[in-house]
Amino acid sequence: MGSLAESPKANVLIVGSGGVGTMAAYSLEKGGKARVTAVLRSNFAAVEKNGFQINSLDHGNIQGWRPSEIMNSIPDVSKQHNIRPYDYVVVTTKNIADVSPGVSEIIAPAISPGHTTIALVQNGLNIERRVIEAFPSNPVISGVSFIGATEGPKGTIKHDDHDVLIVGAFKNPNISPDVSETSAKRFVELYGSCAGIDCMYEPDVKFTRWRKLLYNSSYNTVATILHMDTSRMRVSEHIIDDLIRPIMMEIRAAAAAAGVNLPLELIDKMIFADTFEAFFKPSMLQDIERGNYIEFENIVGEPLREAERLGVPAPTLRVVYGMLRGIQWKVREAKGLVKVPTSPGGLKYGGANVKRNVT
Amino acid sequence: MGSLAESPKANVLIVGSGGVGTMAAYSLEKGGKARVTAVLRSNFAAVEKNGFQINSLDHGNIQGWRPSEIMNSIPDVSKQHNIRPYDYVVVTTKNIADVSPGVSEIIAPAISPGHTTIALVQNGLNIERRVIEAFPSNPVISGVSFIGATEGPKGTIKHDDHDVLIVGAFKNPNISPDVSETSAKRFVELYGSCAGIDCMYEPDVKFTRWRKLLYNSSYNTVATILHMDTSRMRVSEHIIDDLIRPIMMEIRAAAAAAGVNLPLELIDKMIFADTFEAFFKPSMLQDIERGNYIEFENIVGEPLREAERLGVPAPTLRVVYGMLRGIQWKVREAKGLVKVPTSPGGLKYGGANVKRNVT
Repeated sequence: MGSLAESPKANVLIVGSGGVGTMAAYSLEKGGKARVTAVLRSNFAAVEKNGFQINSLDHGNIQGWRPSEIMNSIPDVSKQHNIRPYDYVVVTTKNIADVSPGVSEIIAPAISPGHTTIALVQNGLNIERRVIEAFPSNPVISGVSFIGATEGPKGTIKHDDHDVLIVGAFKNPNISPDVSETSAKRFVELYGSCAGIDCMYEPDVKFTRWRKLLYNSSYNTVATILHMDTSRMRVSEHIIDDLIRPIMMEIRAAAAAAGVNLPLELIDKMIFADTFEAFFKPSMLQDIERGNYIEFENIVGEPLREAERLGVPAPTLRVVYGMLRGIQWKVREAKGLVKVPTSPGGLKYGGANVKRNVT
Repeated sequence: MGSLAESPKANVLIVGSGGVGTMAAYSLEKGGKARVTAVLRSNFAAVEKNGFQINSLDHGNIQGWRPSEIMNSIPDVSKQHNIRPYDYVVVTTKNIADVSPGVSEIIAPAISPGHTTIALVQNGLNIERRVIEAFPSNPVISGVSFIGATEGPKGTIKHDDHDVLIVGAFKNPNISPDVSETSAKRFVELYGSCAGIDCMYEPDVKFTRWRKLLYNSSYNTVATILHMDTSRMRVSEHIIDDLIRPIMMEIRAAAAAAGVNLPLELIDKMIFADTFEAFFKPSMLQDIERGNYIEFENIVGEPLREAERLGVPAPTLRVVYGMLRGIQWKVREAKGLVKVPTSPGGLKYGGANVKRNVT
């Protein structure tokens, strides 16, 4: 453990060491301005033994790489006095708003009030709300990542789409905007110091997040419901016309009502966003294929609620939301969190067995 | 082949010998007033050799049963002069409006103009339109079936939900309504003569069809999209609240605009329609699990088009329609009818590969 005197580097804790988190750890260390501790879970043993095996578009083939430190649980800075306060806690886990524990609960032991900046490198809208509530005196910053990086066998990362990270400060009403913005800009400096990375400061966080929703609320969700890559949707044509474009138009209208102007040309750009030849499966589809929870509340639920609050019709999003909620219910059942009864007693929609054939 | 003199029985051809068709053949023969010829396809060889093996809730265990005659293709009455004109051609196939050949093309060789009544024992709305167009001088009658009957191994039928058939005449503007109605009533007599069957004449065909759509456009479609039985939907509660009930309400509103009053109580009845303990998978889900086409055009497309024609909002149906169209596209691909190109040249949504990470 270094003291401040020994190490002028920023002290960074990364929570979530799948593809996105591992590449963030790598870039921050490689940039030379940060000392990274990575919290690993399922891959801790593999990485402790052999390090990460990274096959990276931006950085080449890297065998046996390790960040400065790895841990298998969130450190408690109030009890472990040999730990220097974290300057940044970078959260790169999925944001599953409807499943406990939430992000705030998970990271709480590592946060030094009034000091640590919390960087949410996650998808969706309004993800900062609960975090600011839980840590009112800390800067919270937004990272919108366009990297393509996934973990295969434990500790093995395939990084196949260029690392672009757009950073800005969320508005925390309890602290000066200057503090949050300075912290966001410093994070850009730390991250962007690594060669081959595009890390940009963008003060308009709302714009960045709504823009990414154009893709995530449409392709990502419809791919999940239909179990279909984005190239096949484009070949069909009607999936774009019936579903993808209407969703994008609803997001655009909701964003406009929320004061964010997404130019119409962006929609056509987003429709062609994926390289056709990649037959790309968006992240939520990959999650569901692995039996994981889907982060549909922040990607669809929040923009839908924003739209309805602002009086903007979002009929396609509403149905997509209902479908994804049903899909999440199946994941819960598969994980044993929902027990399906064999008889209808006590269920809201259980009783009154009117036979179908006599109705 | 019997002549009219030898056989006073109605001469009936049944097209489609899955569960519904086979049980119709059985009931018509057992009632003693019809001579049935069944057109078999994939199960012809099995049935020719061993007959049908029927395990029936209404009729018990029946081994090696055969209708009066079986054929492996539609007979051509204009060329096979030993065939007495069919009084009824009963169509119990799925009605896949978007896949050729259509019902009219399939049955054409067996229809005697001005004589044969065409009985469509099929789901959905407006299924009679193309048939009346193709056979303007023939009565066309509607059969709405509530039977539960499926074919397992070839020639093996499991009949596990009571046979209820509601019959009425479609309006054929080219012939007297009396002729069509008389033919419908006679069909009820033929079919209902079998003990254990509920076959009813119902003059209000539109009401019967819209009523069944309450179930088919909601449970049947959402089950297909989510791969989920109806009991699990009811356990979740939100799938009923978010999707099933809104669809039923849209169908009810569209029906009202089309002059059909579906009482509100019917919706609650339909929500509880399936026996909870059955964990029932509706027919469209069964179809998709078998890799078969789904009959979504008549079950969702037609009521949606009716709603939009009549100015009734049907936002949920619209999205469900888009999803089902995507699912049907996947079936087409699996059957080799869609060839997915490996490069985007010439596609409407192919080119302009703007990389996602720079948008």
